[in-house]
Amino acid sequence: MTYTIGLDYGSLSCRGVLVSTTDGTIVAEDEFVYPHAVIDHELPDGTPLPPQWALQDPDDFRQALPQIIPNLLKSSQVNPSQVIAIGIDSTASTVIPVAEDLHPLCERPAFRNRPHAWPKMWKHHAAAAVAAEITEAAIAQGLSVVRKSGGAIGCESLMPKVLQIFHEDPEIFENAISFFELCDWIVSLLAGREVRSTPLLTCKSLWTPQDGYPKGQPFDHITPKLAFHDGVRPVIAAPGEPVGTLHPSMAQELGLLENTIVTAGQMDGYAALPGVGIAEEGTLMMMIGTSTADMILGREWKDIPGVCAAMEDANLPGFTNYAAGQACVGDMFKWFIDNCLPEKYTLEARRRGLSIHACLSELAATYSPGDTGLIALDWWNGNKSCLNDMRLSGLIVGMTLATRPEHIYRALIEASAYGARKIIDNFNDHGLPVHDIVACGGIALKNPFLMQIYADVLGMEIKTAACTQTAALGAAIFAAAADGRRSGHRDIFSAIRAMGCQKTISYKPVIENTRKYNDLYGQYMTLHDFFGITCKNAMHFLGDCRK
Amino acid sequence: MTYTIGLDYGSLSCRGVLVSTTDGTIVAEDEFVYPHAVIDHELPDGTPLPPQWALQDPDDFRQALPQIIPNLLKSSQVNPSQVIAIGIDSTASTVIPVAEDLHPLCERPAFRNRPHAWPKMWKHHAAAAVAAEITEAAIAQGLSVVRKSGGAIGCESLMPKVLQIFHEDPEIFENAISFFELCDWIVSLLAGREVRSTPLLTCKSLWTPQDGYPKGQPFDHITPKLAFHDGVRPVIAAPGEPVGTLHPSMAQELGLLENTIVTAGQMDGYAALPGVGIAEEGTLMMMIGTSTADMILGREWKDIPGVCAAMEDANLPGFTNYAAGQACVGDMFKWFIDNCLPEKYTLEARRRGLSIHACLSELAATYSPGDTGLIALDWWNGNKSCLNDMRLSGLIVGMTLATRPEHIYRALIEASAYGARKIIDNFNDHGLPVHDIVACGGIALKNPFLMQIYADVLGMEIKTAACTQTAALGAAIFAAAADGRRSGHRDIFSAIRAMGCQKTISYKPVIENTRKYNDLYGQYMTLHDFFGITCKNAMHFLGDCRK
Repeated sequence: MTYTIGLDYGSLSCRGVLVSTTDGTIVAEDEFVYPHAVIDHELPDGTPLPPQWALQDPDDFRQALPQIIPNLLKSSQVNPSQVIAIGIDSTASTVIPVAEDLHPLCERPAFRNRPHAWPKMWKHHAAAAVAAEITEAAIAQGLSVVRKSGGAIGCESLMPKVLQIFHEDPEIFENAISFFELCDWIVSLLAGREVRSTPLLTCKSLWTPQDGYPKGQPFDHITPKLAFHDGVRPVIAAPGEPVGTLHPSMAQELGLLENTIVTAGQMDGYAALPGVGIAEEGTLMMMIGTSTADMILGREWKDIPGVCAAMEDANLPGFTNYAAGQACVGDMFKWFIDNCLPEKYTLEARRRGLSIHACLSELAATYSPGDTGLIALDWWNGNKSCLNDMRLSGLIVGMTLATRPEHIYRALIEASAYGARKIIDNFNDHGLPVHDIVACGGIALKNPFLMQIYADVLGMEIKTAACTQTAALGAAIFAAAADGRRSGHRDIFSAIRAMGCQKTISYKPVIENTRKYNDLYGQYMTLHDFFGITCKNAMHFLGDCRK
Repeated sequence: MTYTIGLDYGSLSCRGVLVSTTDGTIVAEDEFVYPHAVIDHELPDGTPLPPQWALQDPDDFRQALPQIIPNLLKSSQVNPSQVIAIGIDSTASTVIPVAEDLHPLCERPAFRNRPHAWPKMWKHHAAAAVAAEITEAAIAQGLSVVRKSGGAIGCESLMPKVLQIFHEDPEIFENAISFFELCDWIVSLLAGREVRSTPLLTCKSLWTPQDGYPKGQPFDHITPKLAFHDGVRPVIAAPGEPVGTLHPSMAQELGLLENTIVTAGQMDGYAALPGVGIAEEGTLMMMIGTSTADMILGREWKDIPGVCAAMEDANLPGFTNYAAGQACVGDMFKWFIDNCLPEKYTLEARRRGLSIHACLSELAATYSPGDTGLIALDWWNGNKSCLNDMRLSGLIVGMTLATRPEHIYRALIEASAYGARKIIDNFNDHGLPVHDIVACGGIALKNPFLMQIYADVLGMEIKTAACTQTAALGAAIFAAAADGRRSGHRDIFSAIRAMGCQKTISYKPVIENTRKYNDLYGQYMTLHDFFGITCKNAMHFLGDCRK
């Protein structure tokens, strides 16, 4: 019996699983909550941050390893010799400026108070103007990557974040030897050598195996500090391929053997695809958490407008991995709870000993589709797919003096479901039919009320993967494929079929609700097209005003 | 020295003033809060009400008299013989179905549980479909009243409310001898005879002195039960004209003399115009409370689209009184406080011993125009002016994960200011220039933060009348005019000039803010025209869905 470890670096914590390579059974799991969480108001020393900034502390990432891995071994009683490989996935682009020996630049005492020295989290949106500059240059050069990235280079990807440093804090830029995606950084620490993962290079850094990085300005400013800096040739590999074995000091620190294989890192949404057992086209994975990541495989290249990062071989060999998403889902509900919920509701939840979500869902469930008279546009964090415009913002229409918090809560859930339907319609309309849906992620497992609304709005059955750690499981599956000799899986597809999550919970649409939601979705699309296309300047103007 | 009494029947209470006819000094005031307030969820016996209903208890109106009037006399020490006349104003149309002897139908035990037997408050909006039926019939008959009512017969006026009873509860309709506007009912009780006020007949009942009520269907169903029912000839008079003296039993109950003159009633917004001292064209009165009433006089008839109830002689003789308004202002802020304010804010206000409005204003005042990145459409209770469409609803756009309650609060205040600007632009654009603004009403006096935003958005100085009871003062001024012999005022204009409020607080626009608001108002107007004209079906659809 052999096992692999998968580590999933999320926004607020790192989750680890120890998995049987035979059938994917998770025999142990553990979580490390980042002590510094998201740094979006001020640095630990009090240095204030401008709006739309979101940083993290790299030590939080590092400290996850010596907690989680020993815990996994201890609680499973698995012998370290049975642990054959380790895989990593993370949020992306979470970008770490590093000095020599992979040391984060922000850990130098002189740079502790310099915001640009700190890792920029995926949802750091302060590089939007720089992203526009890069998009313009990429279009001018005719780079096909723009089309494949949904028509624009998103401000969440690596290049705008690095160029922002170049523009705004040249000293930090100069002192950085390189810039790492979070999962590449962890993989490099584990393997004791510099590793870059191909999907991150192609999806987030405009790199291609044929041409490398784009040339000309503004790219020439920053590419000398990216993967191939100062003559360093990193290991470049895809998830599922081995990049080496654990560095001896790491093996010792973590309690694993030195011959443990390390595979290349993957983006978290991408890793969940094998985690939920998808190895063919036609099935959409919908990972619903603070935001939503939608993934679907295609054998042929299709030009799908507004879909991001549809890079060939970026996830499973031989497939294009089409990636769409919604920039906030759970975050939007949390925003509502934190900012819009009256004392009366908070007290009632406390009195009944229930979560606020449970109380609100109970109230919201007493209504039928349309009853609230509200429609929202779910763009509290911009629009990531189809429109691909992070300068868009949230909207609620239909409010009256009789509107109650539970109405708004239900409208926000419905809005996120309409957003999901728009993404599916977009796939269907452009030659990539969605036949099945597998949901995963915290919200998919925890909120049956929301899942039923999704099924009703989509008019399709949704199967929720009964696994809390699909991304970490995916990372462990990539690890198993990276050591086929010991795991017995000749390729990643074999590993997915054996180890991907099989157990699901089904949500079937209620026809009467679907009929009503069809009309409401028509209204949503009217708003979507008006604010997202015809009159997008209105939201851009408001965004430019916002302080 | 002589005095008059003015009684102002508002939405939640009746206010009374005892006023010197020499200079309008208010020597005593009193308030009677309606024990039953607004009945909008269920009747006192628990009978549930459908959405959009708003009823009141007629006994609340009646009980105000024997509390307020003796209190005024007592606290002022004015001798009843010095009180020469009494005037009434009220919300409109607040419609009371009555049986014999002016008894409210809902007070019959058999009808206590029948919603249609109860007075329908002005903001009862459940007659919207019926209002559309009446508008259609009025247009088909070519009645000029439609144009003069802003293009549609509003569901807040009397006829739709009565026709709704005819359609939905024929037994109640049959048992009603007549239907009264609230102020007519009180005046009739005081004078002991049936009285109808011309401005209410012309503005709210489609009646004209020349033609009476419109003929044909659906009017013929209901007009036999209106003013001239069963051969009864009421006294028909305008505010400022005497309709008789106090009925002896009333005089005795209230502690006044039997020779006290009673004048015809007026709508509350209209009564405030003389109250703030306006007796000429060019000055807009803006009465800001739960809703806003805007009034301006014109010597010539102008066709101003979407302005309601612009009837000749409806207020001051020789003038057309142009009436516009916003259907909710204070109500919208109250909705926000009641439904959207987190516990943290409520606790903080409590801790500091401040009102929530004071706390929120303090926070909202730290921002400049545009900083919140939000724009709202202030249509939580429909749009009463310019668009004149009560099926429209509220909207907020520009929300992000960084949006805070104080941002939304500020955006709602700004939205109500943009709505006010649209009304003024509409007057200016159609030949009725607004040179000066006098504000009054509870919010104008209590919220300097809001008033400064109004001045900045309008780009005009606003003078707030330093009088808490402008409508009641106006009613007292009408009373003084009704007894010119004893008051010494030969006409209403003389009474206004002597008695109207003179003391004001000035708010001057800050040029830099006005400049920014000009751009933001442009965005508001884009939304206004899209949701109010181009795509009004979207809001109508949501309204039709709402349960």
